[in-house]
Amino acid sequence: MYGFDYMTPTRLIFGKGVIEKLPEVMEQFGKKILLTYGGGSIKKIGLYDKVKELLAGHEIIELSGIRPNPKYDPSVLDGVKLCKEHDIDVILSVGGGSVLDCSKAIAAGAKYDGDPWDLISYKAFAKESLPIVDIMTLSATGSEYDSGGVISRTETNDKIGYVDPHNYPAVSFLDPTYTFTVSKKQTAAGCADAMNHIMEQYFCEDSTILNDGFMEAGLKSLMVNGRKCLESPEDYTARAEMMLTCTYGCNGIYSLGSSPSGWPCHGMEHALSAYYDITHGEGLAIITPRWMKHILNDRTVGRFVKYGVNVFGIDSSLDSFEIAERAIQATYDFFESIGIPMHLRDVGIDESRLGEMAHHVAVNEGLINAWAPLDEKDILEIFIASL
Amino acid sequence: MYGFDYMTPTRLIFGKGVIEKLPEVMEQFGKKILLTYGGGSIKKIGLYDKVKELLAGHEIIELSGIRPNPKYDPSVLDGVKLCKEHDIDVILSVGGGSVLDCSKAIAAGAKYDGDPWDLISYKAFAKESLPIVDIMTLSATGSEYDSGGVISRTETNDKIGYVDPHNYPAVSFLDPTYTFTVSKKQTAAGCADAMNHIMEQYFCEDSTILNDGFMEAGLKSLMVNGRKCLESPEDYTARAEMMLTCTYGCNGIYSLGSSPSGWPCHGMEHALSAYYDITHGEGLAIITPRWMKHILNDRTVGRFVKYGVNVFGIDSSLDSFEIAERAIQATYDFFESIGIPMHLRDVGIDESRLGEMAHHVAVNEGLINAWAPLDEKDILEIFIASL
Repeated sequence: MYGFDYMTPTRLIFGKGVIEKLPEVMEQFGKKILLTYGGGSIKKIGLYDKVKELLAGHEIIELSGIRPNPKYDPSVLDGVKLCKEHDIDVILSVGGGSVLDCSKAIAAGAKYDGDPWDLISYKAFAKESLPIVDIMTLSATGSEYDSGGVISRTETNDKIGYVDPHNYPAVSFLDPTYTFTVSKKQTAAGCADAMNHIMEQYFCEDSTILNDGFMEAGLKSLMVNGRKCLESPEDYTARAEMMLTCTYGCNGIYSLGSSPSGWPCHGMEHALSAYYDITHGEGLAIITPRWMKHILNDRTVGRFVKYGVNVFGIDSSLDSFEIAERAIQATYDFFESIGIPMHLRDVGIDESRLGEMAHHVAVNEGLINAWAPLDEKDILEIFIASL
Repeated sequence: MYGFDYMTPTRLIFGKGVIEKLPEVMEQFGKKILLTYGGGSIKKIGLYDKVKELLAGHEIIELSGIRPNPKYDPSVLDGVKLCKEHDIDVILSVGGGSVLDCSKAIAAGAKYDGDPWDLISYKAFAKESLPIVDIMTLSATGSEYDSGGVISRTETNDKIGYVDPHNYPAVSFLDPTYTFTVSKKQTAAGCADAMNHIMEQYFCEDSTILNDGFMEAGLKSLMVNGRKCLESPEDYTARAEMMLTCTYGCNGIYSLGSSPSGWPCHGMEHALSAYYDITHGEGLAIITPRWMKHILNDRTVGRFVKYGVNVFGIDSSLDSFEIAERAIQATYDFFESIGIPMHLRDVGIDESRLGEMAHHVAVNEGLINAWAPLDEKDILEIFIASL
């Protein structure tokens, strides 16, 4: 078992109607708020008006238009500028993981004198950061309970996941009813994203009885509840279990003491969505079963057997490779069954830039050190198999 | 699914040799340390000398002799006095859960002007508390990752579990090698204690797929690793998995969103160890299967079926009550197999005060509101069945 140094200090306030606690929560951080959000969805569900009403006594500066796969410019740079100009005390992020990831980069940049890209690219490290409170409207990334964020820079096709302990949200408001209106497409993509977060940690050399059971339960929860959310978008219990299960995705608790895995599918998917701006969860769902097939061998098969038997209930008396192949097919079939387009061509990616992307991933993502090492040739083969 | 307001801000530093980080950790809290510990075990394993050597530049005041089932007087009151006299900055608790529970009460009392018992008995609430750092030498209570503590007051036979969000340790050092020398008796009792923490949360009306899988994995981890620790006390992996699994016991993460259970076995056991000062984990192991048998009925049987099938692998095609009864017997058998004395008489408790204790529990522990409500008669019957 590996050593670790772990802390997740975020306060989770979970349940229907918890937003009523917003004023007392914001009070402790100050009066000047940068309110960050994306498009119009928070206005459509009445959340924007509710927030403004609850925080009537505060000075609120707004940064809207934050896009999925949030961009360094615009958005991060704009937010940093607003924080500095208005001497902001706290950021209130209202939306999904993209708005929150962007808010984290803004929070760190606001307290840094140089170019905020230094922090994202680890050329420098934040000494402090503005506090962040979030209200989540999408179950997917787990950003509400971790210290990471993913920021894209269009001109260089960079999509960088960066982690900084200053970036844990101080408080995350999780009201499952805010996810009732999430579209089928985004519900499915969120489910796939959260499932992949677990798979990235599950497929490693050494895990524990506790972690394996926790992750297998997480995967089962996401499959059962993901399907229910699609069938009955206002099923509170399903949306709630979905929301909580997603929350644990990236804060490390699923793999405390496990050996590192390298998060290979994220490494590959980041190139896809940096070059083509596709939906992250869809990119992951497309890549994952092809990656599984590519790395299946005598050394890795045992892990796939465990996955197949414990997550999909495949008969443990079958031959190991038979179990593994059925498990990989079951993974593909589940994603397809919830309506995810399962080919790169379905999301607008053809063969023209696969080589370029594979090279970018090989150079930047360090997947040669993953549990199942991937070089440029492997990555290209996985991309081609995903077409 | 229930709402919740949850935070565990403790930093866990886990692994062999992590104590080397102690000086830099203590530095951030100040120079004046109250070092709390129990008997001589930390001296025997060289930990006392190591701590003194690492903290040579600090002013260290000592409070030793903290006993299992830690006492308000002596110990808590002495510690509070020392903190006030010496203007202590931080408490360093070295030992098991009892030393840490006592240290939590001291930390809160040190910043409170009145009688510290007010805080323990919820007559008043702490506004602040001294920071606590702990180095654990026993896997059992989970105090290292929660905000609770249990304090006994001999003259009134009170043993009170009190929870205060100020009492989360700031940092917990978890080095599994410090548990290599824990006796078979204490290893088994710690295992039973941690298993009961999970069972207390498992047996409730509504849980989730995620929580159930997490708890079932926790129970399996404790049974497999508990047995390994007894067979090979220096098996690092087993001691490490044991240590981490215990850590989650009481911080609520196993039951986020689940309906409340009432922690009935703890309610009953607290009387046993308040009146007779027995080992907490042994008391729980004795009570638990008798409690299970007592509450098994048409309403509760479904939960026992899930427990039996998923934790003990009992054939799910059997009759529900048959599965439940086998699961209860398997629970008893496991505790017995790790060497726990399974009758109250074995730990020095006869029938003479059972009625008095049952009355005390009925009046003080609110078990009439538990998932399976218990009145004084029920409690007495469970005590008698445990003799």
